Amino acid sequence: MAVYTEVSDEELARFIAGYDLGKLLSFKGIAEGVENTNYLLHTTAGTFILTIYEKRVDVADLPFFLGLMEHLSAHGVSCPLPVRDRRGNVLNELSKRHAALVTFLKGVWPKRPKADHCRELGSALARMHMAGRDFPLYRPNALGLSGWRPLFEKFASRAGEIDSGLGSLIQQELGFLEHAWPTDLPEGVIHADLFPDNVFFIDEKLSGIIDFYFACNDSLAYDIAVCLNAWCFDPDSEFEPSKGAALLQGYESVRPLSAKERQSMPTLARGAAMRFLLTRSYDWLNTPKDALVARKDPADYIRRLAFHQSAASIADYAPQLIS
Amino acid sequence: MAVYTEVSDEELARFIAGYDLGKLLSFKGIAEGVENTNYLLHTTAGTFILTIYEKRVDVADLPFFLGLMEHLSAHGVSCPLPVRDRRGNVLNELSKRHAALVTFLKGVWPKRPKADHCRELGSALARMHMAGRDFPLYRPNALGLSGWRPLFEKFASRAGEIDSGLGSLIQQELGFLEHAWPTDLPEGVIHADLFPDNVFFIDEKLSGIIDFYFACNDSLAYDIAVCLNAWCFDPDSEFEPSKGAALLQGYESVRPLSAKERQSMPTLARGAAMRFLLTRSYDWLNTPKDALVARKDPADYIRRLAFHQSAASIADYAPQLIS
Repeated sequence: MAVYTEVSDEELARFIAGYDLGKLLSFKGIAEGVENTNYLLHTTAGTFILTIYEKRVDVADLPFFLGLMEHLSAHGVSCPLPVRDRRGNVLNELSKRHAALVTFLKGVWPKRPKADHCRELGSALARMHMAGRDFPLYRPNALGLSGWRPLFEKFASRAGEIDSGLGSLIQQELGFLEHAWPTDLPEGVIHADLFPDNVFFIDEKLSGIIDFYFACNDSLAYDIAVCLNAWCFDPDSEFEPSKGAALLQGYESVRPLSAKERQSMPTLARGAAMRFLLTRSYDWLNTPKDALVARKDPADYIRRLAFHQSAASIADYAPQLIS
Repeated sequence: MAVYTEVSDEELARFIAGYDLGKLLSFKGIAEGVENTNYLLHTTAGTFILTIYEKRVDVADLPFFLGLMEHLSAHGVSCPLPVRDRRGNVLNELSKRHAALVTFLKGVWPKRPKADHCRELGSALARMHMAGRDFPLYRPNALGLSGWRPLFEKFASRAGEIDSGLGSLIQQELGFLEHAWPTDLPEGVIHADLFPDNVFFIDEKLSGIIDFYFACNDSLAYDIAVCLNAWCFDPDSEFEPSKGAALLQGYESVRPLSAKERQSMPTLARGAAMRFLLTRSYDWLNTPKDALVARKDPADYIRRLAFHQSAASIADYAPQLIS
């Protein structure tokens, strides 16, 4: 939620001259997004988002992210389309950082999603999974099962600063996940970070998906598990079954889950809660209190994890559906 | 440089329904402006800025600010035009704060203004002064001469934390200003905060002026003195005569200065430097280090003040002009 990289008049003029965009009409920093710097750019050719990649993004991954957005756009998914410059490149340089220009996507993200939003999300997620099937690049999930224990070890000795029982909770849960994690589920390209602020709506209809900077190859059902965590709990971290049911119904209206995927849902949801518990805990302990970025409380994910631990089957996420 | 007030989906929908704006298409927080929260809003009716007034703005002043923007717009000045809701009001409520919607103004502010920008600025400032002549409301300058000593007294005991000589420098300078401050100069509505980030350009042509939240009645020439401080020094706080000359030339091409105004320019410039030295010093000492707002270094204005103290006449601001 901050503009990190300032751009001089000359650098901006030079950057824009590299594209076929006409005249610059407006350029404003956007107070959203914590990983990169985003500017909203108006020119006589239209409205665009200019993203300047900050140090948390690995430059080697950018062709995957930008290529994926092009691929999904070409396959009917509404997402930002990278704009090619006069030489045909999508990746450029600005203010000594890597930068890209993408089309502006209309819509507003829901601060407090309702079940109808979750149904729309479910079907869009399934369509995205189908559209990604023949994307040729591959990127492992750095924040998947094999990444969790190394991340925990970076802050294990300080976990007690967050919550006295947190260290042993994570330790035990990692043991369970490493033992019980499902293999041989259908895999493909997943978004992996599909929180409400990455999904736009106009009039309750989903208008597009943004921010593919955690996208990777992993189990498709794990992406659903991320959404169950991100969309289907109330502000007190109580699970809301009507939203879980809507999400799963929406998804299955496009791509029905296999028996194995359905069986695995509680475990996948525990894994997704662990992934965000770990990154939030790490950031909590390592973000200076005077940083421009608001720290997110890890405790939300301790409560989500407890719910998933108590879930016996996918029916606990959608009680009104016959499972 | 931050979004302070978050707006819920329901509050935003209710607010927008009060206007004849069509369908909401996009709503993004802008990472600019330190006094208020600003959102960029797209609807099927156009593009707008939604401002939510934070506690530093006195609600009683809002009719002056909003009325002035309407008045200036109606008199040919390019500035944001407040939008009336279905009941004819420009001032509204949102998220328990006062809020207003204004038209979006195209253009980009110059990070590093050149002399040509200063010439454009000068003539636009003079046109704004002319257009404001028959504006019927009155607002004294709270940060004018009579406000400086009370503001200094709020932090005088801590001035040494910024610079060991700062307390006595301000003390002496206030004595001079209270003695030498010019009276009976032409008065009218002034912007009083016309820094580069409040002035937009397209292709080196001035496209509009924004942020009237310090506007008030005071000597017109004092507004020029603010601009000399804000536009005509390089990043090391060295005065740049080519910019000063361009600013004054541009201004006088529309409204020639009186002999008294020209004589008073060094004193007015000292006063303007004092005004920003005082507010920056106060903010420096009173802004928590972990605040979302970047603190601005008061030292820039110690150096500017020293230049103005050395200036013998308006010729020191525009040596190539015959004064």
